[in-house]
Amino acid sequence: MAGLFITFEGGEGAGKTTVIQHIFQKLIAQGIDVIQTREPGGIKISEKIRSIIHDPEHLEMEERTEALLYAAARRQHLVEKVFPALEQGKVVLCDRFVDSSLAYQGYARGLGIDEVYAINQFVIQDCSPDLTLFFDIEPKKGLERIAANKNRERNRLDLENIQFHEAVYEGYQKVKARFPERIKTVQAGQSLEAVEQDAMDIISSFLNENEKGGNNEINYYGDSR
Amino acid sequence: MAGLFITFEGGEGAGKTTVIQHIFQKLIAQGIDVIQTREPGGIKISEKIRSIIHDPEHLEMEERTEALLYAAARRQHLVEKVFPALEQGKVVLCDRFVDSSLAYQGYARGLGIDEVYAINQFVIQDCSPDLTLFFDIEPKKGLERIAANKNRERNRLDLENIQFHEAVYEGYQKVKARFPERIKTVQAGQSLEAVEQDAMDIISSFLNENEKGGNNEINYYGDSR
Repeated sequence: MAGLFITFEGGEGAGKTTVIQHIFQKLIAQGIDVIQTREPGGIKISEKIRSIIHDPEHLEMEERTEALLYAAARRQHLVEKVFPALEQGKVVLCDRFVDSSLAYQGYARGLGIDEVYAINQFVIQDCSPDLTLFFDIEPKKGLERIAANKNRERNRLDLENIQFHEAVYEGYQKVKARFPERIKTVQAGQSLEAVEQDAMDIISSFLNENEKGGNNEINYYGDSR
Repeated sequence: MAGLFITFEGGEGAGKTTVIQHIFQKLIAQGIDVIQTREPGGIKISEKIRSIIHDPEHLEMEERTEALLYAAARRQHLVEKVFPALEQGKVVLCDRFVDSSLAYQGYARGLGIDEVYAINQFVIQDCSPDLTLFFDIEPKKGLERIAANKNRERNRLDLENIQFHEAVYEGYQKVKARFPERIKTVQAGQSLEAVEQDAMDIISSFLNENEKGGNNEINYYGDSR
């Protein structure tokens, strides 16, 4: 497809979501045709599927059922939102994607990276991300950041024990080893400014190499910065 | 697992559902510990997933999303209903299972038998049916049967064009060729009585070979018949 698909991955408290917002604004200022999204992303069917996953009454939901529901919500979000944007030549910034499923469900929950990847191959077909930024932070430090941020509502995963988050981190290391070309690491333990700068540098050089993502001339170090 | 898992497959109008009811009653009369089911089978989460699939407002639902939702509903039905019954040593009669997904979604809808099988392997793990009865009827004849039955509410699939049902039939032939040991064919174009008899003969000899399915002594040709 004509566009570029960039995903953002990492454990809790890595600062992904804040950094994506920053990058999104920077790219817009550079005249790049960009969207940001995060599953289920306002897609009606995907939102309905997510509400089944998150319904607190569904304590009996089994982990493979859950993984398939995440995959189904992912597919519809791709078809309705990501694919059309890529076909129009846009840069798509997506907060979490298949690698999250591999690290969380595949490794930390023990379903198997290979098995979770198999159902995700059915979802994405040939549409792997063009670039993935892995926000690397020691799990304990990430959780401390979250605890210090009074404005952030804690979700169920934040409250899982540290062992689970260590396992997610290990899972991401395995996923990185599997896709070394695609996944670039950002040291997320630095100051927010430094993290934003590193992430932007990776994306800028990637966009320069690929020369896609908009009709305007791209000026990464111009006045708008 | 201790029990036996028997599935029933075939196109529209093959008489499966009627025959299962007959077999279920026969097995009960023989003192066999048996249940009959059909996805979503009253399982709360599976029913909710099915209602997303069948919501007439969801015209935008893509076919891979649908296949993943069927797989998710299948998984929860297995975990809550089929696995516990098999662990208790019961005979489980299930009206449609993975082969339906392979024939309908995989072949007739064109998603690919291999690809749909991959997500279903995630669902069933090692729990393939022990025996599958394929009710073989010429698609045109099956549809005529349905048209003649005023009591049966027609569903969306019944109304698809004949080409689709021919494709489902072809899909089943491919699935049969893939699992020749597991899938036995019943000539479903015969009278209902003859179909019931043939199906019961296959199941009886299978149960005899396997000597499972209940604590009572099994007397297939005894007084209760």
